[in-house]
Amino acid sequence: MNSEITTRLTAALPVIEAAGAHALGYFRQPLDVENKLGTGFDPVTIADREVEALIRERLLALWPDSPVEGEEAGLTPGDSPWSWIVDPIDGTRAFISGMPAWGVLLGLRHDGQPVGGIVAQPFTGETFIGGAGRAVCRRGGAETVLATSGRTDLASAILYCTHPEIFTTDATRAGFARVSQSVRLTRYGGDCYAYCLLAMGFVDLVIESSLQPYDILPVAPIITAAGGVVTDIDGETPLRGGTVIAAATPELHAAALRLMQQG
Amino acid sequence: MNSEITTRLTAALPVIEAAGAHALGYFRQPLDVENKLGTGFDPVTIADREVEALIRERLLALWPDSPVEGEEAGLTPGDSPWSWIVDPIDGTRAFISGMPAWGVLLGLRHDGQPVGGIVAQPFTGETFIGGAGRAVCRRGGAETVLATSGRTDLASAILYCTHPEIFTTDATRAGFARVSQSVRLTRYGGDCYAYCLLAMGFVDLVIESSLQPYDILPVAPIITAAGGVVTDIDGETPLRGGTVIAAATPELHAAALRLMQQG
Repeated sequence: MNSEITTRLTAALPVIEAAGAHALGYFRQPLDVENKLGTGFDPVTIADREVEALIRERLLALWPDSPVEGEEAGLTPGDSPWSWIVDPIDGTRAFISGMPAWGVLLGLRHDGQPVGGIVAQPFTGETFIGGAGRAVCRRGGAETVLATSGRTDLASAILYCTHPEIFTTDATRAGFARVSQSVRLTRYGGDCYAYCLLAMGFVDLVIESSLQPYDILPVAPIITAAGGVVTDIDGETPLRGGTVIAAATPELHAAALRLMQQG
Repeated sequence: MNSEITTRLTAALPVIEAAGAHALGYFRQPLDVENKLGTGFDPVTIADREVEALIRERLLALWPDSPVEGEEAGLTPGDSPWSWIVDPIDGTRAFISGMPAWGVLLGLRHDGQPVGGIVAQPFTGETFIGGAGRAVCRRGGAETVLATSGRTDLASAILYCTHPEIFTTDATRAGFARVSQSVRLTRYGGDCYAYCLLAMGFVDLVIESSLQPYDILPVAPIITAAGGVVTDIDGETPLRGGTVIAAATPELHAAALRLMQQG
């Protein structure tokens, strides 16, 4: 199975890099006149749609039987146990405010389980790839193997979360507050890039809520291949998104999950 | 005076780019063994000190009479009315967590007033320069003139702030909450890069608190040269740091300042 994962990720890599280049063409562009007139023109939605269509078309050309599920255009069905999940531009709020914390996300599943993922951040020129027990970052022709920090204690951990208001229930809000009060440093605003920083070993914990499957399934294999652990609030593979706890080590994950589940 | 500002910023540019390259050498480096042993080794402090020393030495070689004030080593006095203010690595928390939102900051003052500034973000390869009525971003050999968004209403504005907990008084906390509730989107985690996004026209408002003079004086001339307005909570030039309101237009600034001062 690992060889099929590697084969597919290798073949999908130029697709995602092309998609990243296309998305970059919409990044930091002046607002369109139509937008100023308030007619509802949304450059991000257009970029989203075009990028997803590009990815879908090229993946289906390579593997016609593999289903492709995307944020924008839904599911293209297929008979293969191997399927793709796409978030064409994850981190729309970062994207529209010029912050390079967004990414083009592609996840590979086998029988519904996340087994591979690619994140492209074309402004910084980084592409993160994980699966089959190996996670790497490619930038400017160089490839770096990724490994999480190995940190096991909350007290010295760095925690990222996109926004303090993503927790929509009292229980998750209180749980996040308990974790935040236990760590060395809490930072907001990471978007999908925070998961890449976790895989690189610079961030120790990422906790988010209100996620969709396409937000987390593409990054989960990068985190686990780098040595990390990522689950939902029940400690299970985050197949449905929701509240997600990603950590550098099993010990740190267990400690954070305990605080998230308390009370 | 404008020609002297331009002359000095032009001559200081290679100094700050060299300083940025030096800081980049410490960015995303594996932790030192000493750090793991908990003996207090702090790679960021070392990078800070080295970068500031490099800047100080080269500025004094160019203008021996111009005072240089830095975060790390304090004031080197001089008789010139032109003086420099340096934050060698602004955004330490971004720096240690691998997020490229930090910057090397240099401010130029004349008779104590901020008249020029440079911000280098070497990972993204961007350098922002402002003064004498002109703000630009240099990246990969290209130079782009900067202009703020021109947005005048709070309801459609994008607001950035490094962290929700930087407001240390009830009044500033309540003021920020009022502004945040009035805008289209609030984002955290921008550090000094948020001011650059404001100058580029992608962010409309930046509100921060607990700032030091070296945090804001280098970026203020970039914002004003791009068409924005930046003041302290009293509506004055933020010479002492503290709470700072930076906005794309005078109208938006007035609206945000009013909400910050209320009650």
